[in-house]
Amino acid sequence: LPDSEPKLIAGIRRRAAHTRSRARVSRVVAGIGDDCAVLRLPAGHQALVTTDLSVEGVHFRRDWHPPDSVGHRCLARGLSDIAAMGGDPVAAFVSLALPADLPQSWVDKFFSGLLKLGSSFRVPLAGGDVAESPSGVCTDIVLVGSVPAGKALLRSGARPGDGIYVTGELGRSAAILHGLSNGRKPAPRAAENRPHFFPTPRLEAGRALRGIASAAIDISDGFSSDLAHICHESGVDALVHEHSLPRGVHGFDSSSLHFALHGGEDYELLFTAPPKARVPARIGKLRITRVGEIIRRTRPRKSRDSDPRLFLADSHGQRKELTPRGWEHFSAGG
Amino acid sequence: LPDSEPKLIAGIRRRAAHTRSRARVSRVVAGIGDDCAVLRLPAGHQALVTTDLSVEGVHFRRDWHPPDSVGHRCLARGLSDIAAMGGDPVAAFVSLALPADLPQSWVDKFFSGLLKLGSSFRVPLAGGDVAESPSGVCTDIVLVGSVPAGKALLRSGARPGDGIYVTGELGRSAAILHGLSNGRKPAPRAAENRPHFFPTPRLEAGRALRGIASAAIDISDGFSSDLAHICHESGVDALVHEHSLPRGVHGFDSSSLHFALHGGEDYELLFTAPPKARVPARIGKLRITRVGEIIRRTRPRKSRDSDPRLFLADSHGQRKELTPRGWEHFSAGG
Repeated sequence: LPDSEPKLIAGIRRRAAHTRSRARVSRVVAGIGDDCAVLRLPAGHQALVTTDLSVEGVHFRRDWHPPDSVGHRCLARGLSDIAAMGGDPVAAFVSLALPADLPQSWVDKFFSGLLKLGSSFRVPLAGGDVAESPSGVCTDIVLVGSVPAGKALLRSGARPGDGIYVTGELGRSAAILHGLSNGRKPAPRAAENRPHFFPTPRLEAGRALRGIASAAIDISDGFSSDLAHICHESGVDALVHEHSLPRGVHGFDSSSLHFALHGGEDYELLFTAPPKARVPARIGKLRITRVGEIIRRTRPRKSRDSDPRLFLADSHGQRKELTPRGWEHFSAGG
Repeated sequence: LPDSEPKLIAGIRRRAAHTRSRARVSRVVAGIGDDCAVLRLPAGHQALVTTDLSVEGVHFRRDWHPPDSVGHRCLARGLSDIAAMGGDPVAAFVSLALPADLPQSWVDKFFSGLLKLGSSFRVPLAGGDVAESPSGVCTDIVLVGSVPAGKALLRSGARPGDGIYVTGELGRSAAILHGLSNGRKPAPRAAENRPHFFPTPRLEAGRALRGIASAAIDISDGFSSDLAHICHESGVDALVHEHSLPRGVHGFDSSSLHFALHGGEDYELLFTAPPKARVPARIGKLRITRVGEIIRRTRPRKSRDSDPRLFLADSHGQRKELTPRGWEHFSAGG
């Protein structure tokens, strides 16, 4: 970390040291204050690394999201990627480009949210960088995790006949975002709004799925897009049963199916498992729902680079094609 | 990587796959295209992690720095941190926040510069993220490296009596930046300007110093600031011999000493070594120069949080206090 913002950095260091001391077994040999952090990974494990940008006006808005929510969501994005690989988080790093006129209290609360989530999963903050931003807050979260060698849950392992499953419920985060963009003011700390403002990364579920799931991804872009990612990497197509989807929005409005299919930022896990796999009905308190199955590619082999196809079956068994709609981050204008 | 910029990402993927295939022994088990990269670290090694922001208007200017120089400098910052720990780079990750109106050709050349440097050190690009920036390019480079357990060169190991050394020459990069801010147009590809536009991270030197150096840092903020970092982390003071400093600027103007002492972005290594250590005169073609020695703290022990003190001795042995002057990144206004 540079010394351009000594006060800020001293504060981060202090807070980071605090989370580190609470970590069960610290894997951080040297953290903030050297050129690199030095991490000790468990023997026989591979390292997992993921980076995720959160840009003001694209991933959050300061007038919609309280600073501790922005910090929480920033770290949750990275932890969710570790969960999707079946990994254990080892350490987090955060780079911050901050406007010169940003109040110190915003930064303090950002770190409160980030470090509180870190503490609850015993993930220390081991470094990062700070610079001045010409406009708007830009954060980049880096998560390093570990997974027993060869046991990572990849996107590429889905095979025809595998079941498709999701954890939890889908669509609530997108519904709340939709409300925000329509002028509603959902209370960030209310239990029903936490899936958007304070989502829980599914680390326990990810770990439990090692050796069970054939492929996995976290639902950040939206169910349809993320299922398409699995199909693309695995070279397969998919059939989804509309009535099976665990909708997070009930009687909210008629768009609950739309939010469940295409809404983003659920941070639930989407995974596949072979027919004989013993997929639990719950992992801890988290419900697991079977929502469809992987099918053979329906397009000819030759068109190797073409997109995979997703199908949606209604309760009468009628199939229609499901077009993956990537979650469009809201634009700065709303 | 999200799919919001499919063409860009396909391009990065292709180029990254190319660098990966050229890596001697790929430590990247899974790279771009999954939730996380999976890395294989050598047995008995610890992981090194560093993140560095490069913000347009703060760390570079599009009208001063060609895009391949921006990409090269971005990766060089991270590699230099790995060098300063005595480590071996394993993989790089880059997150990019890009303005919507940025030409594709700029992005292509940015990656050309970044991947060319990566290739020359056999460091694959294993992932990252892309998002739209409301204004200006913002990049965050993440380097993962490895170092034999317990052998990392920390900032905290300097002891009174240790010699202070630097690699290469100091001050050229800052002198070129100074020229740029005064309207000069140095040719980026000319050999004498490469220390600023295309600096070489000192990875070979860092590795060679394992078991020799007692502390190390890379000179990014400037010699005086970075020496103060070592002194701060080690709880010592330092004496520097003015005439010993290997100045990178000769007959350029009278400020060559100023640039050598306080100029930033040299990306040379600054290290200390015990009196009995066998410090080579060169590592490969790179000259190593002894520039001073570590001395006991001159301030009373009580003032534990106070800054360390640096002294500069002239050729007559006269000492004066040397105030570390952190390299001030140029402001957006110039």
